[in-house]
Amino acid sequence: MPGFDVGFVIFPQLTLLDFAGPFEVLSRLGTPPSVSVPSRLPQTRVHVAARTMAPVMSDRGLAVLPTCTFEDCPPLDLICVPGGGGVAEALGNPETVEFVRRQAAGATYVCSVCMGAFLLGAAGLLQGRKAATHWAYVDLLPLVGATHAHGRVVQDGRIYTSGGVTAGIDFGFRILADLAGAEVAQAVQLGIEYDPAPPFDAGHPAKASEAAIALMVQRNAGAHAEIRRRLEGRAP
Amino acid sequence: MPGFDVGFVIFPQLTLLDFAGPFEVLSRLGTPPSVSVPSRLPQTRVHVAARTMAPVMSDRGLAVLPTCTFEDCPPLDLICVPGGGGVAEALGNPETVEFVRRQAAGATYVCSVCMGAFLLGAAGLLQGRKAATHWAYVDLLPLVGATHAHGRVVQDGRIYTSGGVTAGIDFGFRILADLAGAEVAQAVQLGIEYDPAPPFDAGHPAKASEAAIALMVQRNAGAHAEIRRRLEGRAP
Repeated sequence: MPGFDVGFVIFPQLTLLDFAGPFEVLSRLGTPPSVSVPSRLPQTRVHVAARTMAPVMSDRGLAVLPTCTFEDCPPLDLICVPGGGGVAEALGNPETVEFVRRQAAGATYVCSVCMGAFLLGAAGLLQGRKAATHWAYVDLLPLVGATHAHGRVVQDGRIYTSGGVTAGIDFGFRILADLAGAEVAQAVQLGIEYDPAPPFDAGHPAKASEAAIALMVQRNAGAHAEIRRRLEGRAP
Repeated sequence: MPGFDVGFVIFPQLTLLDFAGPFEVLSRLGTPPSVSVPSRLPQTRVHVAARTMAPVMSDRGLAVLPTCTFEDCPPLDLICVPGGGGVAEALGNPETVEFVRRQAAGATYVCSVCMGAFLLGAAGLLQGRKAATHWAYVDLLPLVGATHAHGRVVQDGRIYTSGGVTAGIDFGFRILADLAGAEVAQAVQLGIEYDPAPPFDAGHPAKASEAAIALMVQRNAGAHAEIRRRLEGRAP
C-alpha cells in the first residue's frame, strides 16, 4: 500500500483529549505486528489541519499548533473530527464545514469523536446513518438526519462516530485493527499501556448518579442550545 | 480553600497523551459535585511549564504551547511530570531537573506519568519510595532508589506515580477524588464519558502476546539505554 494520510480537523475551543486520544493511537498506524513482520502501513502520515497556521486554543486553555491549513492539506484517506464546545462556532464557519465535506468525499474512513459528529452532519455525511456522539447531545442527531445507535464506537459503512471525549481512544484502536490488523492494534495497546482501571464506574449515564447527570446536562446546556440553533438554521 | 495551582512540566519529545490525559481530568478540578453544591476548589489554575515559551514538539509530531516558563511558573500545589522518549534528554538538562526539585519541595502532590518517574527520580524524590512507570522501564527504578510496585497508580506519601501513557487518565481521577471527593471525580468521569471499552485486552505484559512484548521492548530499547546511561552518570 502506498502512503496513507490521516488528518484531524481542529478549531478553537475543541476538547484536547477528543483529539489527543485518537491522535496518539492513529499516529502509530505504521507499527508492525511484530519484530519479524513488516508493517502494512509503513508510509502513514498524520496531519493536523486548521483554518490558519495560528495556534488553536482548546476549551481548557491548551494551545496546539496545526501542521497544515485546510487549503494546503493533502487529500486524506482518513478524516477525523473531534468535538468540544467549539463545535457550535465551527458549525457557523463555512470553510470548516466545506473542508470536512470535500475531504470526506474522497476518504476511505470518515470519523468523529464526541460532538464532532455534528460537523460531519452539517457536511451532509450522516443523512440516513446510525451514529454516536457525546451522551448529552444524542437528541440532536435527528437534526442532521442521523439515528442514535448505542455503542461507544458506531460504524455505518465508511462512517465511524464515537461517544464523548475518551471514546476516541477506543475508536482509535477499532480503526487501527480494521486497517492494520488485530496484532498491530494489540501491540500499540501494549505500547501505550491501555489497560484502563478507572477508580469509579460512573462514565455513562446508565451508571452515574442523578446529581452527576443533572450537573453535566446543566454544564452542556449552552453548547447544546447553540448547536441546536446552528443546525436548525442551516439552509435545507 | 484559596487558589490551587496545578502544573505540568513539558519538554521536547514528550508523549502527548501522557500529558493530555491528566491535563483534561485535572483541569476540571473546580467542578462541583452537583448543581446545588459549590466546588471545593473553585480557584484551580492549570499551568503548562517549559524552559521557554517556544512550542514544544511531541514525539509524534504535535506541537503544544507552554503557558509559562520554569522561571515564571508560580509555586505549584500539584506538579505532574509526563513521559516519552524525550525524558532521556530532559534528564541531561539541569534546568528541568532543578525545576522539578524546586517545585516538588513545596507541592502537596508530586506526580508522574509513564517515564516521567525518572525525572522525579533524578530530582531525588523517589529515594526509598515505591513507584510505577511504563512497564518496559520498571527495571530502571532502582537506579533512582525506588522499588517497583504493582498498580496502575502507585501512591507513597505525597508521591503519585503511574504506569505508561493512558495510566495518566486513571491517575487524574485518583487525584481528583483525593482532592475534591468521589462525587466530583464521578461527575467529571461522566462529563468526559470515561467508560472505557477497548476492543482488545492486551494493554499489559501479563495479557499481551510474546510478539507484541518483543516488539515493544525493541522499540523502547534506545530510550531505555539512554535513560540508564543518564541515571548511571549522575553525580552521587
